[in-house]
Amino acid sequence: MDITEIIGTLAGIFTTIAIIPQIYKALKTQEVKSISPVFLSILLLGVGLWTVYGIIKTDWPIILTNGVSFVLNGLMLAIYLRNCNKDKEASN
Amino acid sequence: MDITEIIGTLAGIFTTIAIIPQIYKALKTQEVKSISPVFLSILLLGVGLWTVYGIIKTDWPIILTNGVSFVLNGLMLAIYLRNCNKDKEASN
Repeated sequence: MDITEIIGTLAGIFTTIAIIPQIYKALKTQEVKSISPVFLSILLLGVGLWTVYGIIKTDWPIILTNGVSFVLNGLMLAIYLRNCNKDKEASN
Repeated sequence: MDITEIIGTLAGIFTTIAIIPQIYKALKTQEVKSISPVFLSILLLGVGLWTVYGIIKTDWPIILTNGVSFVLNGLMLAIYLRNCNKDKEASN
């Protein structure tokens, strides 16, 4: 593996796992007020399309990194939706 | 442009612009409490490395999408740091 491949691999790992501390913080605090659901939705759509693109081109690094991102971002959006509904119920 | 290229282009646009509504929300509300700075930092590092990877391979779509992401995510991290410092000062 040359230096370019190492940089590409690290880049893929970092952009894929970045959302994990955000999921952890949201689960721990049960607080999502300052997060934008539009951000999470567009990101989910984007990594979903990247996964489709990878499947069409049979490009495994693209499928793997974006497939994992799709699952993690979907989880984050689900946590957002659960907690923002809670906030609404609490204020009723 | 065939259907695969259209999907790839849309995927690139969506993952690049996704952070904009988050920046807008943070600027409007001046509230960043539930955002994870670790998430923003790892993401910034990741898109930064993707940009370096694109430069080495002279791959303009990678340079452009990740270069823009790097600037936007850097801006979001700066907004986070400004506002979380404000919160600390307010509680002193």
